[in-house]
Amino acid sequence: MSKEKLYLYDTTLRDGQQTQGVQFSTAEKQKIATALDKLGVDYIEGGWPGANPTDSDFFNAVPDLNTATLAAFGMTKRAGRSAENDDVLAAVMNANTPAVCLVGKTHDFHVSTALGITLEENTENIRASVAHVVKSGREALFDAEHFFDGYKANAPYAIEAIKAAYDSGARWIVLCDTNGGTLPHEVREIVGKVIEAGIPGDHLGIHTHDDTGHAVANSLAAVDAGARQIQGTLNGLGERCGNANLTTIIPTLLLKEPYKSAYETGITEEALAGIRKVSRLLDDILNRVPAKQAPYVGASAFAHKAGLHASAILKDPSTYEHIEPNLVGNSRIIPMSNQAGQSNLRRRLADAGFDVDPKDPALPRLLDEIKEREALGYSYDTAQASFELLAREMLFEPRPFFDVDRYRVISERRRNAKGEVVTVSEAVVSVWIGTQKVTSFYENDQADREEDAGPVNALSNALAKDLGPYQAIIEDMELVDFKVRITNGGVEAVTRVIIDFEDSTGRRWSTVGVKQNIIDASFEALLDAVNWKLFRDGAVAV
Amino acid sequence: MSKEKLYLYDTTLRDGQQTQGVQFSTAEKQKIATALDKLGVDYIEGGWPGANPTDSDFFNAVPDLNTATLAAFGMTKRAGRSAENDDVLAAVMNANTPAVCLVGKTHDFHVSTALGITLEENTENIRASVAHVVKSGREALFDAEHFFDGYKANAPYAIEAIKAAYDSGARWIVLCDTNGGTLPHEVREIVGKVIEAGIPGDHLGIHTHDDTGHAVANSLAAVDAGARQIQGTLNGLGERCGNANLTTIIPTLLLKEPYKSAYETGITEEALAGIRKVSRLLDDILNRVPAKQAPYVGASAFAHKAGLHASAILKDPSTYEHIEPNLVGNSRIIPMSNQAGQSNLRRRLADAGFDVDPKDPALPRLLDEIKEREALGYSYDTAQASFELLAREMLFEPRPFFDVDRYRVISERRRNAKGEVVTVSEAVVSVWIGTQKVTSFYENDQADREEDAGPVNALSNALAKDLGPYQAIIEDMELVDFKVRITNGGVEAVTRVIIDFEDSTGRRWSTVGVKQNIIDASFEALLDAVNWKLFRDGAVAV
Repeated sequence: MSKEKLYLYDTTLRDGQQTQGVQFSTAEKQKIATALDKLGVDYIEGGWPGANPTDSDFFNAVPDLNTATLAAFGMTKRAGRSAENDDVLAAVMNANTPAVCLVGKTHDFHVSTALGITLEENTENIRASVAHVVKSGREALFDAEHFFDGYKANAPYAIEAIKAAYDSGARWIVLCDTNGGTLPHEVREIVGKVIEAGIPGDHLGIHTHDDTGHAVANSLAAVDAGARQIQGTLNGLGERCGNANLTTIIPTLLLKEPYKSAYETGITEEALAGIRKVSRLLDDILNRVPAKQAPYVGASAFAHKAGLHASAILKDPSTYEHIEPNLVGNSRIIPMSNQAGQSNLRRRLADAGFDVDPKDPALPRLLDEIKEREALGYSYDTAQASFELLAREMLFEPRPFFDVDRYRVISERRRNAKGEVVTVSEAVVSVWIGTQKVTSFYENDQADREEDAGPVNALSNALAKDLGPYQAIIEDMELVDFKVRITNGGVEAVTRVIIDFEDSTGRRWSTVGVKQNIIDASFEALLDAVNWKLFRDGAVAV
Repeated sequence: MSKEKLYLYDTTLRDGQQTQGVQFSTAEKQKIATALDKLGVDYIEGGWPGANPTDSDFFNAVPDLNTATLAAFGMTKRAGRSAENDDVLAAVMNANTPAVCLVGKTHDFHVSTALGITLEENTENIRASVAHVVKSGREALFDAEHFFDGYKANAPYAIEAIKAAYDSGARWIVLCDTNGGTLPHEVREIVGKVIEAGIPGDHLGIHTHDDTGHAVANSLAAVDAGARQIQGTLNGLGERCGNANLTTIIPTLLLKEPYKSAYETGITEEALAGIRKVSRLLDDILNRVPAKQAPYVGASAFAHKAGLHASAILKDPSTYEHIEPNLVGNSRIIPMSNQAGQSNLRRRLADAGFDVDPKDPALPRLLDEIKEREALGYSYDTAQASFELLAREMLFEPRPFFDVDRYRVISERRRNAKGEVVTVSEAVVSVWIGTQKVTSFYENDQADREEDAGPVNALSNALAKDLGPYQAIIEDMELVDFKVRITNGGVEAVTRVIIDFEDSTGRRWSTVGVKQNIIDASFEALLDAVNWKLFRDGAVAV
């Protein structure tokens, strides 16, 4: 059976930029366009030339694209002038892209309320604008704004408007659920009516928004009804609640029936295995924390916390996974947690490289200890390194590398010699290494920063300043993230601190500390971080 | 036309807790249960009694519920023993809840692979367990695990399994898409087949996961096919990609056709207007940044960034909004429009009791200052008291009540006289009150608690120990909550601290501080808290 072609149109660079707080630089747009092209989408909408400086700059510096067709976005000409004489349209045409997508009104209410013109004038604007694009030899797309609301309000006019675009030579009529309030059953029905009215499905696109959580479902409902182009964005970026999320839709199209057997897209299996990376690239550019629970690509998408699930996963991953995580470049996680049973624990120990006899009587003791500590506020599913240290201590090697004698940290706000108000933090840490006592002092550097880096920074630096024979191993540790939350441990509120370190090999590890005093909680996590590094890098206790 | 009843079953406290990194305390579970009851859901699933200490604790301390029915979760009895003699089931029954929901297998592959028993044994386990619940006088629910996958693999057995539960008296058969890979058209078809097979729709529930981004669409597809109970969680919390998001589904059911006219739920219009708050409450408890793009309740859900959209919104909001934001307790944001910003600000000032001339030239300055500070990490939405102080300072009264000369806080870990390792925190604060300098010292009380209460406690007590002529006013202040978040302020990571105080009249107020140094950030929030109290209680600056 030959497959039908389904086209993917990415609008991350245009509609994605309507997200609150998002503004791409030209270099960022280039990076994203290159990644989209490599992924295999059919169209990349680069922006609205003339609407803002970055969009115009991007069209002057488009990276080489292998297969994707570049599209410029704009609007149909305004009433009272010809397409040739509309300067807004001229700016769009001047970007010289192979495809041009023009948005126009199809909802009678908007024609009169927002534009203040007659329905006939609007139809004529659509006709003349599309004809203008076609005459210039470009591929024309017509974005039918508010199409579903328009169809519900005045179906004959909505159809008249898009037929004007189609009859003028538009390759695609894109039906937009601009306000995002349309539900799947309506999309299915209305797309069917449009096809009945004479626009073939392989000339219809769908453009949805997630205002009711149906952007993905609406896109697929349109395909079910016959549409053959899907517009969306990476990670569902976009105005208000976002556009249809292509990082969700693409895996479904390639891996799930009936789509898998019925349609062909430009995305190869190999590209699909890179989709998680493309998703992270966008988050990196936006400096966003990736959404853990994102379908397919989220860090938690294949995390199995429930004890019953984890034990079945050990027997056969398909028991609790709808697809193989590696198909989308993701991986399975079995976090350690309150919910976990012994099978989770054994699996986790094996992953950490510990060889434990399933009948070892220390195993249930370790599990109890973890549960007890989690009730106090510790979270070992995040702090893998603290989990490994605890396991090592209870199963193999109770002796620590060093003992802390005391520490003291001071934060002080005062006036400096120039009379400016400054805050300064300093710390002293004293440890026993075997029979040797080492005391180190650290004061936060005030020269190269405007603000004091705080007591935990001072404490961390004092602790890592001199650990005698161990110093060479911990020298390359760098504190890269620090999270704090107040939680309830037993009766009193306690402070939970999670600290991430990285070393020169790029390895990253997380530890946890829980105490009422935030300094003490941080110190506990710092100690774990240092001890984990010593243990992983084969330090021998003196 | 009379409406059919549609039941909402919340599993935030049980399946929601399967989220990676989520572990509720008993107090947090109580808070969430109270909010769910007030919202109007029909069932609250509190956890799995016996599976872990917090779940068991919660069932021993359930808050008073007005209308919601409390459910305990567990699994059907194991093979080779009677329902009466299964200790896991006994722990669930012993929680004494009015409803009991038991999960069981309906997919033949899981019966043999995960349980390793015969299909007949499994059917008998279901029958005996449900009968046991019914006999005890409780309402029985049967969670048909992997039902959709099971139906696709072996429809006769999947139907046999759920009929066993139904025929044994289960009030509800809940069809679970446990692995989250089922698509809406399959849900619709299979729910239809189940009804044809003899289980009426008003005894069928739907339980979905978001692994393909269809948790919401699948829930509604099941309702379209006849199911009359929806299971979900607040903010879509849950294992892997999460469960069906009730904060999305509820507004759709109440505001969108055909659901609005066809069904009645326990949620009133008034409760619906509080749904954004319920969503935020959960994020607060989890110390999560609320999802900005969440349908209906997200901060960006009604944010209109595109210039064309914003100008149309000014003419008529329905041009780019699918519902009125206030129906769900949300509000419109027009980020680019200074005009909208100023009218927002004036309303907020009026709400705080400030009488400001709309033409006051300080208004745009205040707006700019707030925008600038929010970009640095301050959050005046939460910290109303800090907002009021800032407004007071910029619009009316720049002179503060007192000036801080210096502070110093020390946290020290050492051995005490008995040789025990202890941590002790102490603080010195020195302030100018007019021409008088007052210096106070405070050391955390070590006697009545096991752990040191930390540097912020010492600092707060030192600051409030002696403020000279103001002392009588601040004497009854009590620090009741303290939240910390590491956030991005400009280029560097900064620490945001939110502190809540309460006084003897029961008044509660929140302030914010943002600095790299957590102590400094806390001190800033403490200062705001003291100054707010002085200003609100009519202190006169000396």
